[in-house]
Amino acid sequence: MNFKTHQAALPLGFKACGISARIKKSSKLDLALLYSETPCVAAGVFTANRIKAAPVDLCIRILGSKRPVRAIIANSGNANCMTGAQGVRDAFDMSRSVASELGVKPHEVLVSSTGIIGRLLPMEKIKTAVPYLVSALSGGKLKDAAEAILTTDTFAKIAVKKINIGGRAVTFAGIAKGAGMIAPNMKHATMLAYILTDAAISRYALDKAASECLGPSFNAITIDGCMSTNDTAIILANGAAGNRAIGSTGNVYKVFAVALKEVCLELAKMIVRDAEGATKFIEISVRGARNGIEADRLAKSVANSNLFKCAMFGSDPNWGRIAAALGAVPSGLVWQKMDIVLNGRPVFRNGRPIAVKDAGSLKGRLVEVEINLRQGAGFARVYTSDLSYEYVRINAEYN
Amino acid sequence: MNFKTHQAALPLGFKACGISARIKKSSKLDLALLYSETPCVAAGVFTANRIKAAPVDLCIRILGSKRPVRAIIANSGNANCMTGAQGVRDAFDMSRSVASELGVKPHEVLVSSTGIIGRLLPMEKIKTAVPYLVSALSGGKLKDAAEAILTTDTFAKIAVKKINIGGRAVTFAGIAKGAGMIAPNMKHATMLAYILTDAAISRYALDKAASECLGPSFNAITIDGCMSTNDTAIILANGAAGNRAIGSTGNVYKVFAVALKEVCLELAKMIVRDAEGATKFIEISVRGARNGIEADRLAKSVANSNLFKCAMFGSDPNWGRIAAALGAVPSGLVWQKMDIVLNGRPVFRNGRPIAVKDAGSLKGRLVEVEINLRQGAGFARVYTSDLSYEYVRINAEYN
Repeated sequence: MNFKTHQAALPLGFKACGISARIKKSSKLDLALLYSETPCVAAGVFTANRIKAAPVDLCIRILGSKRPVRAIIANSGNANCMTGAQGVRDAFDMSRSVASELGVKPHEVLVSSTGIIGRLLPMEKIKTAVPYLVSALSGGKLKDAAEAILTTDTFAKIAVKKINIGGRAVTFAGIAKGAGMIAPNMKHATMLAYILTDAAISRYALDKAASECLGPSFNAITIDGCMSTNDTAIILANGAAGNRAIGSTGNVYKVFAVALKEVCLELAKMIVRDAEGATKFIEISVRGARNGIEADRLAKSVANSNLFKCAMFGSDPNWGRIAAALGAVPSGLVWQKMDIVLNGRPVFRNGRPIAVKDAGSLKGRLVEVEINLRQGAGFARVYTSDLSYEYVRINAEYN
Repeated sequence: MNFKTHQAALPLGFKACGISARIKKSSKLDLALLYSETPCVAAGVFTANRIKAAPVDLCIRILGSKRPVRAIIANSGNANCMTGAQGVRDAFDMSRSVASELGVKPHEVLVSSTGIIGRLLPMEKIKTAVPYLVSALSGGKLKDAAEAILTTDTFAKIAVKKINIGGRAVTFAGIAKGAGMIAPNMKHATMLAYILTDAAISRYALDKAASECLGPSFNAITIDGCMSTNDTAIILANGAAGNRAIGSTGNVYKVFAVALKEVCLELAKMIVRDAEGATKFIEISVRGARNGIEADRLAKSVANSNLFKCAMFGSDPNWGRIAAALGAVPSGLVWQKMDIVLNGRPVFRNGRPIAVKDAGSLKGRLVEVEINLRQGAGFARVYTSDLSYEYVRINAEYN
């Protein structure tokens, strides 16, 4: 594995770059471009929010056409959401102006936006910047693209993985942004994430992999229970690795799917690590539920409990808040049979509390909560962060 | 109306008091007693949490027997929740020792506890205190009872109301505690609230009034979306006013129900005003939903959005977070048709944002959010608070 490298080797045939178009108030990078020299099969998963930003609708339409894709342009600093007919035109214009500069078709360029809701995109700035953006592709770095999609994130999120498929080296490179408005209950995806791979894979197999790997990985994280209007996860595969095209079944598909899931989960965990104001990385496992969906709901109820998250911020082994959050979900839970373990230390077992005299390892940065309901085989694991003064500060002052 | 008086005139035939039994670490009051000189009809609504504290189970059993009730004993500082068979015995012992001291039957004394989960009640302290508690009834004050049930609350919550029924003066007096772990999605009730009335009313009519007035009033508030294990709202009616017994239909029932609802809503709003760390009182109205349940879900989704609550703390008119929270709920919402109004100022209308240049009245303590979906006649109003540094501090340090 080759995670977290910032010397990210792009998969064959891809280029990436990021520049500042002054969409943000600061001079930070805010416009990213991912480009493939040859046509890609593409698949994506998007927010289940009833209010979808204009670029999300455009991506859904482009991917729905099942035609090849060549590029993704993404901006930070403005979400182009609830911006009416003008917003729809602006998303399309972004796609068209990049396509024209690249010499490809508009329907070959996907678009994403992230930032504040309800303000029109500064289209003059974007159109002026597009030629610079395209020219930055030569010598461009994936890290710059990763930086250009950030909002309140504090570090760029990149995951790279190489696998062997039929004797050919296949590379995955993913970038993501997260930080706030990260939530569960999405039917499909959350935040912005783009995975590029040079694997050759059938369209059908890539769709299958997207729904099996992208959705579940990113849905396993929750920061504040707030579902965004712009969440997007897209994978592009250009086939430049030269492997025999991967089908939707069999061992080769499995190898591909496992690798993709690892890349996505690595990005997802980076998002949690960089959650707004987070001082802890919290892993919550629920086992023994009646089924996986129940386990997931229970784990997310704990993960989204403000009282639990504040207790973790204070390194307080207040497991009663875990219990209250579990009980709030309709489930087969019988509390007398349940176990709760905090960082390896049982705090509730055999229907009885086990006295905890000190915060112990809860003072560290990693918290593992293990819950066993002893009712069935349902299992889920979710990742979250604590709720700190800093989260409140960031979100009281964001604009 | 006679709300918020601390010179609370108790309804005829009732006594109330509160003392310190040293259940809390401090010397604050922590043991309350409400007592009627004659038998009462009683009704209650309780938490929908799958994990219910021992006293909640005991109250449900006592009320289920439909026999008269004489008293309620309640302690703060310990929730007697997830305390196993010993906790069940302790709840029963609390009831029995008060009953014995009062000279009534154990099944005539209801019990509540609020505080930390998973610790056994200090029964020695409680049993030692019970004779003092009962003797404190003569000359006891409702305000002391109201203080003795508080946990992180900063003020005692009392609402008193007098109405006229068939020429007789009927009095309601209610006390409540709230502050944290206040949430929606309860089938029945939330936090601790006790309403005493000297009205004569049939058992069936009181049950109906409890489910029509207690549940909805207290379910209209949410502070942190965290559903407690101990939520309880109980009404006792002793008939001392001498009115002809109120039945479950007709005008007299309506007058009773309206007054009861007013008392409950007044207590509920006091709980929001005293929410942990709150700097704002926020009223969210959703109209034009397809039905009332949908309106309630949409309003609660906004009320429980951490991003929205932080924006309010920062007096930031960031209505995009309201929209994102609305969209997160499955509903008939069509954002292009929706209106959003903040403190009387439209910020989104006719599918377009209306530029907001300053925080304006959001800097004040009261925030009114009005949302109109224009899809139907569904209406709901909920009350909540903002999310502040102080909320995090209180809940990181609570123990």
